[in-house]
Amino acid sequence: MAQMPDIHRQQIADILIAWGMPEPEAAQTSEVMAWADLHGIDSHGISMLTVYDRHRRAGRMDMAAQCRTVRDGPVHALLDGGGGLGHVPARTGMALAIDKAHASGIGAVAVRNSAHFGACGFYALMAAQAGLVGLVTTSAATIQVAPAGGAAARLGTDPLAFAAPGAPDRPFLLDMATTTVAAGKLRNRENEGADCPPGWVLTADGQPSVDPTEAREKGGYLTSLGGALEGSSYKGYGLAVMVNILSSGLSGATLVTDPQHTKKPQGMDIGHFFLALDPDLFREPGAFEADVAALSDALSATPPADPAQPVMIAGDPERARAAERGANGIPVAPGLLAKLREIAEAAGVPFRLG
Amino acid sequence: MAQMPDIHRQQIADILIAWGMPEPEAAQTSEVMAWADLHGIDSHGISMLTVYDRHRRAGRMDMAAQCRTVRDGPVHALLDGGGGLGHVPARTGMALAIDKAHASGIGAVAVRNSAHFGACGFYALMAAQAGLVGLVTTSAATIQVAPAGGAAARLGTDPLAFAAPGAPDRPFLLDMATTTVAAGKLRNRENEGADCPPGWVLTADGQPSVDPTEAREKGGYLTSLGGALEGSSYKGYGLAVMVNILSSGLSGATLVTDPQHTKKPQGMDIGHFFLALDPDLFREPGAFEADVAALSDALSATPPADPAQPVMIAGDPERARAAERGANGIPVAPGLLAKLREIAEAAGVPFRLG
Repeated sequence: MAQMPDIHRQQIADILIAWGMPEPEAAQTSEVMAWADLHGIDSHGISMLTVYDRHRRAGRMDMAAQCRTVRDGPVHALLDGGGGLGHVPARTGMALAIDKAHASGIGAVAVRNSAHFGACGFYALMAAQAGLVGLVTTSAATIQVAPAGGAAARLGTDPLAFAAPGAPDRPFLLDMATTTVAAGKLRNRENEGADCPPGWVLTADGQPSVDPTEAREKGGYLTSLGGALEGSSYKGYGLAVMVNILSSGLSGATLVTDPQHTKKPQGMDIGHFFLALDPDLFREPGAFEADVAALSDALSATPPADPAQPVMIAGDPERARAAERGANGIPVAPGLLAKLREIAEAAGVPFRLG
Repeated sequence: MAQMPDIHRQQIADILIAWGMPEPEAAQTSEVMAWADLHGIDSHGISMLTVYDRHRRAGRMDMAAQCRTVRDGPVHALLDGGGGLGHVPARTGMALAIDKAHASGIGAVAVRNSAHFGACGFYALMAAQAGLVGLVTTSAATIQVAPAGGAAARLGTDPLAFAAPGAPDRPFLLDMATTTVAAGKLRNRENEGADCPPGWVLTADGQPSVDPTEAREKGGYLTSLGGALEGSSYKGYGLAVMVNILSSGLSGATLVTDPQHTKKPQGMDIGHFFLALDPDLFREPGAFEADVAALSDALSATPPADPAQPVMIAGDPERARAAERGANGIPVAPGLLAKLREIAEAAGVPFRLG
């Protein structure tokens, strides 16, 4: 089944409102979630409703939460998410960072007491669309990654996003977990009955494995980007620690290594970080965008190793997916569709997806 | 041969002064270069004199260059390196960023018209030692990396460094090329007559190879972090583009993809970027440092996969090496020693290393 983006988004908003989220917050949250699905980031859109439902029922997430400003200055702010979902605090945070960058050249906003905020790229893109360089990081709830050389999970997928304005409609937009792959790619291999490539997962003893169920069922771990020590996985590990320092260290959210991580009375207490920077601090107007466009053009003109797979820049694959799904609708696989039907019925809202 | 750090540094300064660098700049530059060697970053210390000598003789580097400020404001500055070596512009840049962060909370400094500046980590560490979070990026002169999925070199090793203050004497300090490995690790394999692991290099056609001479002699390329498309090398590639956008896009230095890259009349025209951010914008004094220390302690207490190789945090291996070399001296391998002797003789300065 595939539905047009508006219907897809309305389904998400219906459920969030039925769960007690005020309408303005539900409109903002559903927009971010539907954006992820439209752009092919299926792991961070409507599929997350099943996870949010679990947290909500466990009393770990206040659907009526209001985000508030704790500190505020010319180049910075600290927000408290109020123990609710992360999308609205994240939009508020990046919007504040953008305002400060327009006024002062740079804005940095830290958010604590938040939760999952969907796709990092949405917020970095806000900066690029405002003519600014944007950087976004967030800490994670699920601990499933062993530090390089380690045999115990200590970190999450710890993503970062970076965006910069270039040619109109072609900003550079890097949105990446600091692990080799996200858990969804392992699930795909499992569903195909296929091994995964070496370097994606480790056994519980920290040894290489090609079993896609290793992390989910057998006590193993996802690997940091690099895959193995000889592939320089200490770099992916280092980037994950950087992400935690920026997201939790600056905001004061609970550290991923704290025994109280995701267990504190106030809720998940995930932290985020948002930076916006005006390139016109350094360049004449338009010069930076022209350089990003020239760099992007030159890179995507690189002869490909496989003629069927042209070289792209970060953001291109998601833009192509959005064009296709905007025309043909956003597909939802049968298993997820059944779960969403149950959620909609339990919430007492119409089921719009099939 | 191993010499104590002071003698090692003096040798570097002697040569730089003989090449026409004023004494204050030679003192600053030799300190950065000797720091790299002391910390085991041998690829970025005294060994670079052979490269600098080549650029200098080719008229690509003005040893008497003076760095000047082009733009300046409460949170930003733009510097012009004057077509000389990068160490002094980089120290000046990070020192300015630190001053601005102390006064305004954040400082961002871009540098153009510079050249190789040694180890990124030195400058990020300056921020951590001043109680700040530091981020450093630089563009590169040598083009040797193919974009993910590409079959032509378009990028450099494009490094970044990130530092944060933690426990006294144990700041977090990540300093990484965005390639899987640096060229030096391939040379080591070649010297041993050994293959390299899959994922380090590609052939000229963009196919995987385990031949350590592939990039240097056969028209092949280094890989981006991730090693191959199935290891998510598009992430290392994306980080490399981010580094170029920050380093050259913001400063206006020549893009790595510009036909005039390293060929412009004014010199190499490499760009750098420096960011310093005060954690006390968001936290009570000491709280951030305590969190970084707790995170570091918890991570390095992870049970190791190999009991002989404890888990570390970024910065630990280099600190251990500095302690050892500080006591026993900095070794220089025979081949390099012979080249340095020639350079010292040609410069008419005493040879102090053996």
